[in-house]
Amino acid sequence: MAGEAGKARTVLLATEKAFAAAAVTKIEEVLKAANYTMKKLENYKSKDDLLAAVGDADAMIIRSDIVDQAVLDKASKMKIVVRAGAGYDNIDLKACEGKGITAMNTPGQNANAVAELVFGMMIVSARNNFDGTSGFELVNREIAFYGFGAVARAVHKLAQGFGMKSFAYDPYIPADKIKEMGAEPVSTVAGLFEHQYVSLHVPLTDETKASINKDLLGKMPKGGTLINTARLEVVHEADMLEILKTRPDFCYLCDVAPKDIEPFKAAVGDKYGKRLIFTKKKMGAQTAEANDNAGVAAANQIVGFFEKGETRFSLKA
Amino acid sequence: MAGEAGKARTVLLATEKAFAAAAVTKIEEVLKAANYTMKKLENYKSKDDLLAAVGDADAMIIRSDIVDQAVLDKASKMKIVVRAGAGYDNIDLKACEGKGITAMNTPGQNANAVAELVFGMMIVSARNNFDGTSGFELVNREIAFYGFGAVARAVHKLAQGFGMKSFAYDPYIPADKIKEMGAEPVSTVAGLFEHQYVSLHVPLTDETKASINKDLLGKMPKGGTLINTARLEVVHEADMLEILKTRPDFCYLCDVAPKDIEPFKAAVGDKYGKRLIFTKKKMGAQTAEANDNAGVAAANQIVGFFEKGETRFSLKA
Repeated sequence: MAGEAGKARTVLLATEKAFAAAAVTKIEEVLKAANYTMKKLENYKSKDDLLAAVGDADAMIIRSDIVDQAVLDKASKMKIVVRAGAGYDNIDLKACEGKGITAMNTPGQNANAVAELVFGMMIVSARNNFDGTSGFELVNREIAFYGFGAVARAVHKLAQGFGMKSFAYDPYIPADKIKEMGAEPVSTVAGLFEHQYVSLHVPLTDETKASINKDLLGKMPKGGTLINTARLEVVHEADMLEILKTRPDFCYLCDVAPKDIEPFKAAVGDKYGKRLIFTKKKMGAQTAEANDNAGVAAANQIVGFFEKGETRFSLKA
Repeated sequence: MAGEAGKARTVLLATEKAFAAAAVTKIEEVLKAANYTMKKLENYKSKDDLLAAVGDADAMIIRSDIVDQAVLDKASKMKIVVRAGAGYDNIDLKACEGKGITAMNTPGQNANAVAELVFGMMIVSARNNFDGTSGFELVNREIAFYGFGAVARAVHKLAQGFGMKSFAYDPYIPADKIKEMGAEPVSTVAGLFEHQYVSLHVPLTDETKASINKDLLGKMPKGGTLINTARLEVVHEADMLEILKTRPDFCYLCDVAPKDIEPFKAAVGDKYGKRLIFTKKKMGAQTAEANDNAGVAAANQIVGFFEKGETRFSLKA
């Protein structure tokens, strides 16, 4: 249990990249209703600002902000850190555990935002970035999901609207559950790469890092397209470059560009924006709706944690 | 009746912009099965080539190719002209009637191709052309259709998958039929412009030409977005320019750029590709699937016309 209910609390909203003003208003409303005080640290420029701000906070809402040992060492009153969003590789979970601090994410709140971006990228690629030449349609094509959590399922839902056929592999979801959700279960990761589209929905871990390599990518059929709205590092960069160079039909649609984009651009030549799409910054979750959803969910989870001991979305180190 | 069945016929495939090779193969298969000869005039450079080619043809399949009095005057054996596609303002229907030549289009075959392009443009606009900034989602937003034929209905079907709400006005479709198809009937053209998205699906006629003017566009709510996959000329160009200049929230997504794109680019500044999207050439119908569908449908309609007197998709002058 997080401590007594009904106590005044200070919640730090620490966002290097600020929420939209409308979302901040909604977050504050949730916290005020519980008699909590919201303290804002938005658009901060140095880690020192964050280190100085955490000292008096009982809880913290973050986005892609780094919460490591140094931050936690300064956070003497902190009981809970909530990442407003799905990915949480910016939180040092072991350090949280060591300090007895609960860490949570807000899965699912960004799911539709990411899913719509996926279809935007797929259509732009299929229709040659609107250059007036003949492309192809998504209807009747196949998409396979590596990981079938909230985001993958939101993509799957849109895929059904487009008349596509879905396949999925998820080590934590039984095959019959996947079938129940309208996708065909696939028994191995490699099996996913027999379909034209493969969409990645796995966290970045020691196991997944650089795991999407040329053995897998090379198996993809004609027009093979990898969609990466997970983490850049899950894909083996050198192998991807090699595939893009050697297979002129291969496409890579990725929510966030690597640090050095030039070798990728060189690999596809004038097909940049068609065979290869990189968003300028990671933006899958960046919509007015998702901001509202994830920020408000984070605030609600903090209130639930303190007032009712709720720990549903707590993360394990 | 088109004349006796079972007779050998010559069908001219006159395509200034050629079909994909795979589509041509499928068209030829349909014609061969009826014992017809296909004559190809692809990628021709001057009208004289077309005038020279029509003389011995009993039928003709065209795309955006111009079929006017001059062409028909040379087509002494011609019985039927089929536009592989939906729009048919490139055919002089009165001249066809005067010569006793049947004209047809192949409605519906391109519908999904156009619909997917519409969603590609909508998502690119909503997500700021993937520039990494926060955008918005389509879910729960409203789209209104001016004209509710095959293409509009295909867009509507995808819109349902995105969780949008559809509205429609079509002078030729009763309100209860529109309701039956899952859209809310709207009783006037002006009523459509109360919704965030308006998608145009009307032919270019004396009545529709330049009919989308500032009176209508000015009524659109915040984030108002006009989608034009119909004909450029349906929109009043000067009025659209004025709206784009005076309303920084207004978006125009258009399948085909006007001859002079510069005033439009100037009106939206660095928001070109976000608030304003023009395809380089008209490409809504340009997919491998639609090519196959429309070309094969045209061939089938020609065979049906000669062999069984079928005239279902014949056009009135």
